[in-house]
Amino acid sequence: MTDWNPAHYLNFADERTRPARDLLAQVPLTLARRIYDLGCGPGNSTALLVSRFPQARVTGIDNSPAMLEAARAACPAADFAFGDLSIWLPPDQPDLLFSNAAFQWVPGHLQVLERLAAGLQHNGVLAVQMPDNLGESSHRLMREAAARGPWAAKLREAAAARDVLPAADRYYAQLKPHFRRLDIWHTIYNHPLDGADGVISWLGSTGLRPFLAPLEEAERADFLARYRSLLAAAYPLQTDGKLLLRFPRLFIVGTR
Amino acid sequence: MTDWNPAHYLNFADERTRPARDLLAQVPLTLARRIYDLGCGPGNSTALLVSRFPQARVTGIDNSPAMLEAARAACPAADFAFGDLSIWLPPDQPDLLFSNAAFQWVPGHLQVLERLAAGLQHNGVLAVQMPDNLGESSHRLMREAAARGPWAAKLREAAAARDVLPAADRYYAQLKPHFRRLDIWHTIYNHPLDGADGVISWLGSTGLRPFLAPLEEAERADFLARYRSLLAAAYPLQTDGKLLLRFPRLFIVGTR
Repeated sequence: MTDWNPAHYLNFADERTRPARDLLAQVPLTLARRIYDLGCGPGNSTALLVSRFPQARVTGIDNSPAMLEAARAACPAADFAFGDLSIWLPPDQPDLLFSNAAFQWVPGHLQVLERLAAGLQHNGVLAVQMPDNLGESSHRLMREAAARGPWAAKLREAAAARDVLPAADRYYAQLKPHFRRLDIWHTIYNHPLDGADGVISWLGSTGLRPFLAPLEEAERADFLARYRSLLAAAYPLQTDGKLLLRFPRLFIVGTR
Repeated sequence: MTDWNPAHYLNFADERTRPARDLLAQVPLTLARRIYDLGCGPGNSTALLVSRFPQARVTGIDNSPAMLEAARAACPAADFAFGDLSIWLPPDQPDLLFSNAAFQWVPGHLQVLERLAAGLQHNGVLAVQMPDNLGESSHRLMREAAARGPWAAKLREAAAARDVLPAADRYYAQLKPHFRRLDIWHTIYNHPLDGADGVISWLGSTGLRPFLAPLEEAERADFLARYRSLLAAAYPLQTDGKLLLRFPRLFIVGTR
């Protein structure tokens, strides 16, 4: 797949940073010396960490060179390094492992989170947020548009790029043995967007990527037209002309 | 119904205050002069408001004399007054109308919220949180225990004490005309509690009240025993001996 597009991703900077702020608000630390931001993207979550813990050394980890470059420019107070979250381990004992909207892309992430938990300091915190939206119309219709068109063969693998997240009690069962205190919750946001095009614009730099990457330009336009009409039928417009994109996210905060 | 029990309510002070903190975190005001805390209960949410807006005049409103007395003792920096939320209107133009876990008890609360919105200052904020848990096993089983027992006739009205909340888009449709910006979301908390007794203890001072109030003491014990066994069958215990109480809540923050 082509690399991520930081500028496009930050078109919805406010909305995309809100879950990171919500996650950080529940981190029960007053001081931290060593922090990693796992899947830091363009550094918007890293900047939050630096501002909350100005005395800490904060390192952002990502597997996208474009995102790392954008992050270095946007957040000079932190350092950044290439890393693959499925195998990455901290070289020291962190006080906080923070991850906003990244682990949904990591196969078998529950085992990975267990491994990361084991490496935390005493009183260290693992704080993770992941979109849990594969059951939403936005994503169901993406798969439907992919399955019914001349592009079906090319997109056969696209839906497999992310696994459906386990239920909250599964995370609790598997992670609780590693933590003194474990808080798990979902927040379902409703983003007022500019119609079906707003949804495509929102998802174009994230959830739609595995569906768009395998297609030629013309095919991509046809696929998006199909997806756009399915979205328009599924999401009614509100009186102010906006469409509400329901967007569930899972949050986990464990204290060692 | 007998009056509310502030001490019992505050047994889960931390967990019950979390939604109020989450709601307050999204209030986009840096300064406020006039604030009302609607359905202030024992003043835990009022104390949060005073600490976030120390320069504001904060008044807590509640219809429970016991709660008002507890609130006055707990939060001397605010003042408190008796009021019925279904008809209450501010005597001045508030900057912030805040309400944590109260409007679910007010019949036709959507119309009431519209009326309150109209009275806000320019840039004023309405911030409301309500439990949206009538569809959860905890509440379904409460109704089931009520319907199948010698107490069925006495408890026929109990389930009607609260209406099921409308969906998020219904609130958006009806409230958006009153606000420049309107943010609506759900958070589904998972509270680790000490088995079925933990659930009864949690709900005993809130959702269970309309079911317990009409019963004699002996009947109440039988009803609770029935409810307890239904809960124990519905909520599996986790490896740490805890039960996870799923608890969805609706949040609304509108800026005038």
